[in-house]
Amino acid sequence: MSSNLEEIKLPLILVNFKTYSEATGIKGLELARKAQEISLDTEVSIAVAPQYTDIKTIADEVEIPVFSQHIDPVAQGAYTGHITAEAVKDAGAVGTLLNHSERRLKLSEIDEALRKAKSVGLTTVVCANTPSVSAATAALNPEMVAIEPPELIGTGVAVSKAKPEVIKQTVSQVMGVNSKIAILCGAGITSGEDVSAALKLGMQGVLVASGVVKAKNQKVALLDLANPIREAAK
Amino acid sequence: MSSNLEEIKLPLILVNFKTYSEATGIKGLELARKAQEISLDTEVSIAVAPQYTDIKTIADEVEIPVFSQHIDPVAQGAYTGHITAEAVKDAGAVGTLLNHSERRLKLSEIDEALRKAKSVGLTTVVCANTPSVSAATAALNPEMVAIEPPELIGTGVAVSKAKPEVIKQTVSQVMGVNSKIAILCGAGITSGEDVSAALKLGMQGVLVASGVVKAKNQKVALLDLANPIREAAK
Amino acid sequence: MSSNLEEIKLPLILVNFKTYSEATGIKGLELARKAQEISLDTEVSIAVAPQYTDIKTIADEVEIPVFSQHIDPVAQGAYTGHITAEAVKDAGAVGTLLNHSERRLKLSEIDEALRKAKSVGLTTVVCANTPSVSAATAALNPEMVAIEPPELIGTGVAVSKAKPEVIKQTVSQVMGVNSKIAILCGAGITSGEDVSAALKLGMQGVLVASGVVKAKNQKVALLDLANPIREAAK
Amino acid sequence: MSSNLEEIKLPLILVNFKTYSEATGIKGLELARKAQEISLDTEVSIAVAPQYTDIKTIADEVEIPVFSQHIDPVAQGAYTGHITAEAVKDAGAVGTLLNHSERRLKLSEIDEALRKAKSVGLTTVVCANTPSVSAATAALNPEMVAIEPPELIGTGVAVSKAKPEVIKQTVSQVMGVNSKIAILCGAGITSGEDVSAALKLGMQGVLVASGVVKAKNQKVALLDLANPIREAAK
Repeated sequence: MSSNLEEIKLPLILVNFKTYSEATGIKGLELARKAQEISLDTEVSIAVAPQYTDIKTIADEVEIPVFSQHIDPVAQGAYTGHITAEAVKDAGAVGTLLNHSERRLKLSEIDEALRKAKSVGLTTVVCANTPSVSAATAALNPEMVAIEPPELIGTGVAVSKAKPEVIKQTVSQVMGVNSKIAILCGAGITSGEDVSAALKLGMQGVLVASGVVKAKNQKVALLDLANPIREAAK
Repeated sequence: MSSNLEEIKLPLILVNFKTYSEATGIKGLELARKAQEISLDTEVSIAVAPQYTDIKTIADEVEIPVFSQHIDPVAQGAYTGHITAEAVKDAGAVGTLLNHSERRLKLSEIDEALRKAKSVGLTTVVCANTPSVSAATAALNPEMVAIEPPELIGTGVAVSKAKPEVIKQTVSQVMGVNSKIAILCGAGITSGEDVSAALKLGMQGVLVASGVVKAKNQKVALLDLANPIREAAK
Repeated sequence: MSSNLEEIKLPLILVNFKTYSEATGIKGLELARKAQEISLDTEVSIAVAPQYTDIKTIADEVEIPVFSQHIDPVAQGAYTGHITAEAVKDAGAVGTLLNHSERRLKLSEIDEALRKAKSVGLTTVVCANTPSVSAATAALNPEMVAIEPPELIGTGVAVSKAKPEVIKQTVSQVMGVNSKIAILCGAGITSGEDVSAALKLGMQGVLVASGVVKAKNQKVALLDLANPIREAAK
Repeated sequence: MSSNLEEIKLPLILVNFKTYSEATGIKGLELARKAQEISLDTEVSIAVAPQYTDIKTIADEVEIPVFSQHIDPVAQGAYTGHITAEAVKDAGAVGTLLNHSERRLKLSEIDEALRKAKSVGLTTVVCANTPSVSAATAALNPEMVAIEPPELIGTGVAVSKAKPEVIKQTVSQVMGVNSKIAILCGAGITSGEDVSAALKLGMQGVLVASGVVKAKNQKVALLDLANPIREAAK
């Protein structure tokens, strides 16, 4: 692992801004500031994954970790319209999501993107839709795997409560391949109860999007998610 | 066409930064400033297409038109890792490239991306690899089409000098479909001679990348490209 | 156009077998035989587009035109898992669908696949999801364009009755680009009434799938579709 | 594992016909017959992977195992232009390649295609370009993994002689994940020496294409490849 890799504190709440209008441009910056405020208040690790065009502004303004939502498995050079590890690192990101169910990659692309990410010291969270895909991902040695059954994404029905067996199988299969990987879960996470359930299943964090971004009160939603982690740390 | 579409002055030199290290981050900003300086000095229209992560910084700092290198044909919403028309517009872009040979799109995606671009007032330049693809593109009604034979990209062998028949066929076929489209050419453009040859063939500008980005002296390269357009305007 | 191109008689009913179990293997052969029987009885042109694995068996057994559902834009050579124009021609196909909404292609791939198809004398039917995409397609000079609004595919709600304005715009835009193209429509076509409506809108045929393949009585369904064409020919 | 899975005898020589003209249609059938003849003469397990359009004819004519070159991760149904597990099984294939470097798949697609293959009893050989991708693949539980460094494919420079360390790392990493997987190697394999080197490195077979398909004398080439396996069996 690259020596310039910044430590991401676990358990982690990773907020994916997707391309929601509620998290684009100035609204993205405001959400990142709210995430920072709750992180400081609760001492819970919260990271944000804004859109590419907002990474620099947000990374310049907040101290919490900023992730890219994706990088392409390409070098710097003649790759019009691509997003490189170097570009997001230069803009201030310290990590990146890869293979989100809305941006799935070829297996060989994940392998190559992980090499690119590591070469510049980006922490990597690879998303997976099934326990077996999670295990396959673990063999590629990212820092974290995030299990997200796609059928629950955006539903408000939390994977940690509705599909505990998927999480248990993921833990079992991932650990069989690579015991150093931190496992997050996502899909439908909207409340502190969902986070509690995830922690009890051995998760080291959650990946959340609409549950925060589209919440009536984003700060209240963030605080609700952070509380079980704060409690567990006491 | 959207009424908030900013007018791009023709003929146009459009500089594609691709993901070159020589045009990423602070170097991208410096190159944009050089382009602005030459544009002001020569009164020739020069636009820049930096990486997504640099659009905002550059658009905040320069007055010349800033393009995105690509947008995805998706709405704002649950599209992790995508780049929307709204996001690049919000960051300060006034236009976008589409379907570059290094980022080719499905036909239906070009159609949809053009609708998205127009809905927010982005000027569109759709790239095409052959005369027939240029004509197909013209049927989708972008503002500009850029013909770029992929085998010449990055070679320094200019399409306008090496393949004038490709440009002539493109003009003929595009005009048969849609006479309102401005046509640019690209691939191998590095010198004022290449631009002169393009203008003589009826081109309303050039798309250039390594010829400027990787030039020993970027300002000299830009000035060389601008000179024939300045001369023609006298 | 290649001189070895077999003439496909218009108006045409083109039956797409997709990967339906009801049209795979022996069932595909049986459906092709039924299509031939109805075609002979009614003197209406009916073609079938079975799965790749069934092309040869069906083409060996029936006299009606056999289409491939897709070809890749690649040459014969080192392209594992691809389907070439030469392979489907060799197996007995006389034409191919391209760019079906379930198998959309990049614009440059359609252009190249059309060249490959023409080089071996395959008749081409390019599918399009909108009037503007239909017009773009027409610029690439296939023999036929098939307009199919994807939201109606498989619904039983016929495009020719539910969206006549889409068909009218398609005719207008396609004719503005290339007046030699035959236009088919598809999506939701299940009855003779749907075919009648299509013919009245200027269509030279229909593309049909589940309306025949999944019909309780495939022969009755085929006869119902053929009747309006037979009547019109009297 | 499905009970209707036919046993493939190891070590295996798997001949990928790709889309070579020398292995299309009647030439594909002739090559399959030669492979069968050498297999019978030497008692070495040889399988063939012809193009989709030739699977049925070849499977009807020869007794050796026939593989598909790829299947799509889709069910039977509304998937125009796709190739299903059911279709290739119905045509007579007993197995399939997946994720060849010329037909790479998304990670989630490999996972799903393996489920489809197993549901109908197809033996699976998943190709991988690096040791880490091989290990990831092993976590998905196919019957075999084939390591093929893409830069050697078609070169005649055999992976087993030029890159033994890649094979050793593959064995080590795959066994760490799943010790039940058989490992093949491919890329540049053209001679008996190449096969010998592969067997010494612990390979249970080879994947070969141009080395046989484009050989001046295909039978001589096949016999040369089979000899070291025959010798080892004595």
